[in-house]
Amino acid sequence: MNYQAILNVIEKELANFDAGGKVPTYIPELAKVPANKFGLNLYCQNGEHFNFGDYDELFSIQSISKVFTLTLAKKFGGKKIWDRVDVEPSGDPFNSLLQLENEKGIPRNPFINAGSLVIADILISELENPKKYLLEFVRKISNDQTINYDESVAASEKENGYRNIALVNYMKSLGNIKNNAEDVLDFYFYQCSLKMSCYQLSKAFMIFANKGKILSTGEKVITTNNTKRINAIMQTCGFYDEAGEFSFRVGLPGKSGVGGGIVAVHPGQYSVAVWSPLLNEKGNSEKGMKALEELTSLTGLSIF
Amino acid sequence: MNYQAILNVIEKELANFDAGGKVPTYIPELAKVPANKFGLNLYCQNGEHFNFGDYDELFSIQSISKVFTLTLAKKFGGKKIWDRVDVEPSGDPFNSLLQLENEKGIPRNPFINAGSLVIADILISELENPKKYLLEFVRKISNDQTINYDESVAASEKENGYRNIALVNYMKSLGNIKNNAEDVLDFYFYQCSLKMSCYQLSKAFMIFANKGKILSTGEKVITTNNTKRINAIMQTCGFYDEAGEFSFRVGLPGKSGVGGGIVAVHPGQYSVAVWSPLLNEKGNSEKGMKALEELTSLTGLSIF
Amino acid sequence: MNYQAILNVIEKELANFDAGGKVPTYIPELAKVPANKFGLNLYCQNGEHFNFGDYDELFSIQSISKVFTLTLAKKFGGKKIWDRVDVEPSGDPFNSLLQLENEKGIPRNPFINAGSLVIADILISELENPKKYLLEFVRKISNDQTINYDESVAASEKENGYRNIALVNYMKSLGNIKNNAEDVLDFYFYQCSLKMSCYQLSKAFMIFANKGKILSTGEKVITTNNTKRINAIMQTCGFYDEAGEFSFRVGLPGKSGVGGGIVAVHPGQYSVAVWSPLLNEKGNSEKGMKALEELTSLTGLSIF
Amino acid sequence: MNYQAILNVIEKELANFDAGGKVPTYIPELAKVPANKFGLNLYCQNGEHFNFGDYDELFSIQSISKVFTLTLAKKFGGKKIWDRVDVEPSGDPFNSLLQLENEKGIPRNPFINAGSLVIADILISELENPKKYLLEFVRKISNDQTINYDESVAASEKENGYRNIALVNYMKSLGNIKNNAEDVLDFYFYQCSLKMSCYQLSKAFMIFANKGKILSTGEKVITTNNTKRINAIMQTCGFYDEAGEFSFRVGLPGKSGVGGGIVAVHPGQYSVAVWSPLLNEKGNSEKGMKALEELTSLTGLSIF
Repeated sequence: MNYQAILNVIEKELANFDAGGKVPTYIPELAKVPANKFGLNLYCQNGEHFNFGDYDELFSIQSISKVFTLTLAKKFGGKKIWDRVDVEPSGDPFNSLLQLENEKGIPRNPFINAGSLVIADILISELENPKKYLLEFVRKISNDQTINYDESVAASEKENGYRNIALVNYMKSLGNIKNNAEDVLDFYFYQCSLKMSCYQLSKAFMIFANKGKILSTGEKVITTNNTKRINAIMQTCGFYDEAGEFSFRVGLPGKSGVGGGIVAVHPGQYSVAVWSPLLNEKGNSEKGMKALEELTSLTGLSIF
Repeated sequence: MNYQAILNVIEKELANFDAGGKVPTYIPELAKVPANKFGLNLYCQNGEHFNFGDYDELFSIQSISKVFTLTLAKKFGGKKIWDRVDVEPSGDPFNSLLQLENEKGIPRNPFINAGSLVIADILISELENPKKYLLEFVRKISNDQTINYDESVAASEKENGYRNIALVNYMKSLGNIKNNAEDVLDFYFYQCSLKMSCYQLSKAFMIFANKGKILSTGEKVITTNNTKRINAIMQTCGFYDEAGEFSFRVGLPGKSGVGGGIVAVHPGQYSVAVWSPLLNEKGNSEKGMKALEELTSLTGLSIF
Repeated sequence: MNYQAILNVIEKELANFDAGGKVPTYIPELAKVPANKFGLNLYCQNGEHFNFGDYDELFSIQSISKVFTLTLAKKFGGKKIWDRVDVEPSGDPFNSLLQLENEKGIPRNPFINAGSLVIADILISELENPKKYLLEFVRKISNDQTINYDESVAASEKENGYRNIALVNYMKSLGNIKNNAEDVLDFYFYQCSLKMSCYQLSKAFMIFANKGKILSTGEKVITTNNTKRINAIMQTCGFYDEAGEFSFRVGLPGKSGVGGGIVAVHPGQYSVAVWSPLLNEKGNSEKGMKALEELTSLTGLSIF
Repeated sequence: MNYQAILNVIEKELANFDAGGKVPTYIPELAKVPANKFGLNLYCQNGEHFNFGDYDELFSIQSISKVFTLTLAKKFGGKKIWDRVDVEPSGDPFNSLLQLENEKGIPRNPFINAGSLVIADILISELENPKKYLLEFVRKISNDQTINYDESVAASEKENGYRNIALVNYMKSLGNIKNNAEDVLDFYFYQCSLKMSCYQLSKAFMIFANKGKILSTGEKVITTNNTKRINAIMQTCGFYDEAGEFSFRVGLPGKSGVGGGIVAVHPGQYSVAVWSPLLNEKGNSEKGMKALEELTSLTGLSIF
């Protein structure tokens, strides 16, 4: 497979693609990002990688960080985390409170905001310094010590995060948050503020394509079984209430963020990250989805 | 891979598995089926097949038929069917009306009852004799002329199908059913009454593991692209509000029915059907799910 | 109080009132009614009555009939009817299925469609010929033998009543309809088709202003206690999801119908019926509500 | 009418009434109140008053305070408050978030927590010192300078008010809270902490029975029209999702609080306050409701 040639076709084809969405305005720091950014990096099982455009530029990974925190929670919280968060797709938007009220404060899955806040709460209980631990983990699996939080983005979200404050207090009223609401929110806003490039993200996500092992070092950071399960959750829950659409069009497990990034994984083959800031009304990067749809169409490869 | 040895282990391991569920009572004909039935058939890409227990006994495939009718609707209704039914997982039970009211009569996906009733409506509009056409299609892909509807089951469902009558009339009030409500229900109850064995089902579903081609004849009955998309919908929507759980535990696209059957597909590898009538509270065969979970654990193979 | 002078003011004031709504189109027979009809009749405790406009013209009373059937159900079904229908206001539209799914098939109150269908089911169980009995009851309390059903309206609703077919079958699936769905719907569509004038309606509703007694004959047809309770239900549930608005603006118990009629009662004082076919988006006659608001403002009388 | 004789009957009849509910535990200070407290005071239009039991003992009025703040908001916020809070009954519990999500942050009515938080927000915008103003207003209409906030109750609620923190932040995320969330919550918890006796409450609520005038001084503190409207809202929304039940059984406008108090008003006749701390599952004092039901039954007086 000549991946670079295929990527060149996609880049050219989508050069004038009108995504028609918009940059999110509820996080002022994100609203400043130029809408025309576009980059992609594909990392292969054999260590090669291919890319185009702004693939090496840092952006706010936002909800993509939920995959990292879930991975750590599985490691330290074990099976009991599934008593506090479910694994079912949610038919509701990413920040919905509706579902929580119907289901006694148990979030539908760990990738909606409510679920990730519970995961944050678990990590705060399990780890001495979760912010530090998470950062070191992401640096290790990316093999890149330069990765960091963006304090101004974290502060910006804290300033305007009324919906997340509502979510965490609501779950606390139902007994599903054990730590102080402020501490949970602080960690959560930090995790979302991680800045990474498509290159770094695709490298980090190779653990999910490679049965839990870091490609460069061979170190096993998740069990094979947990890798499979996290991929399964990405497949069914990775795109808010557009998970079916992504599965239908792209056919790979993946995760998106409101920073415009999407990462997807073809187990045993590659991991791929794409970035384009304009979001559709479901909160996913429209051009990013299109690029990945083209990728699986042109390669003829999908898990299905 | 010694599939037969693995199946033997599963059969033995689950011999005394207490599924703890119950046979559905709302369809009197199904309530008569012995609860201890248990069988499995695995059909390989290379034409071999392996099995245990009651793998050759006929049972009511019920909602598994929704995959067949979706396949025909894609063939005859084309892309426009996605204007009338969505592809997103549903967080609600299989026969919920809630979602329809919120979303103007557009069912969440073609595998909940409402969605399959819309698919039935499409086939009635597109085909001269949909009952006959469906039966011939299933016989062809199974390469078995003995397959048939069970008129007593169809009659039994018609007698007690108040919820489905409600669904179809509700969608008609919102303009998403074009034909006579009675005709749609009649076809729907017939499709659900199809009787097949695990052996026949796994053979029929090989088209989804084999890029749309019938294994025995090589005839292409669905495009590669549609095969991939139907598999994606099975992955995210095949198990009512337990799709995430199945994806999480088994990691394969599949479809269950209240007759106690489950079919799952590993594209490029095999298709597998299992039957055990006791259903959990989500309406899926508990022992069947367990058997498939064991299968992917023991083989180490899943799409993730 | 010079009621006639006040009515004259209201008639004049609202002559050019732009109700801005529309005649309902889902019942073809109702869609034919001229939109500019407008009439009102006020019937006093002392036997006098006052009116203007089309107060003597017959129109389809539709949901106003639900008060009559509830009255009969209280008489024949006794307290046990409250096991099958609640008395709480509904936040949802008059024909919603949402609430039923959340509350196991028990309608919120007897004035939403679902609730009135349960009341119809109760009357079918309790009375030999409920259609005949209802008609005789309405004729008696109106002291008018000419009142009748409108067969063409009943037939028109039956032809297009998909939503009501859905409601009754859905409740039957949950065990809250005991008789045949067709029989319940037939009686329900007949009751809704009753044709009455503002004059006749205000006369009939005097029983609710007069502690259960027919004004002309003195015959007690409901207990004082039941009269009070039916008035309380009209107050909190008489206007679909606009009950609060009506209570807020008018301050009287009442009931509206999609035929454009509204009846309201001031216990111990009067009963009043108004008719104007244009409905607002909640399904209530906008001009009718305005007229009653003016009436309580100008008389300075409300129950509050 | 010999009110005292009737009250004596009620006191005796209910002496051994098993309310079967419980004291709320989510506000620790309230959980300390003895469950067997029981008192009632009825204040007549002619200035007489009648009572029994613990009618003169102070208790936490909690949500009853929402009627006072609404009264002030009408005075200072005028008609525009109805753009930010509706007047429809809510089918959901008093602290539900469901409805807000469906209706864009506009609370159903001013008597559910969300609605009263918006009212608090309005008063903070309109008044220099809302806490002081409210206290002076309540003291004036009760003609009693000893009435005060209970700081320990306010502090206790602030400590555990996760649900209210969630509500106010959620509405802020939707733009329907203008001031700082902490300030709104602080005022809200203070208003709920007001301590009053049945005697004081019934005296204060005479303004709603007396067309907006303070009985002792004749001072008009609300317009006649606003009095009528506030009574109408009490009638349809005063008892959370049990407003219909109260209207049905008692037939008077009223308001309850989780401190076990209920106040009801018969315009032109009397106002009555009752206190019994055991709450039913809807959050209303069961014995209090029973006492008021007996009162309207024995007097034969209700607004209906």
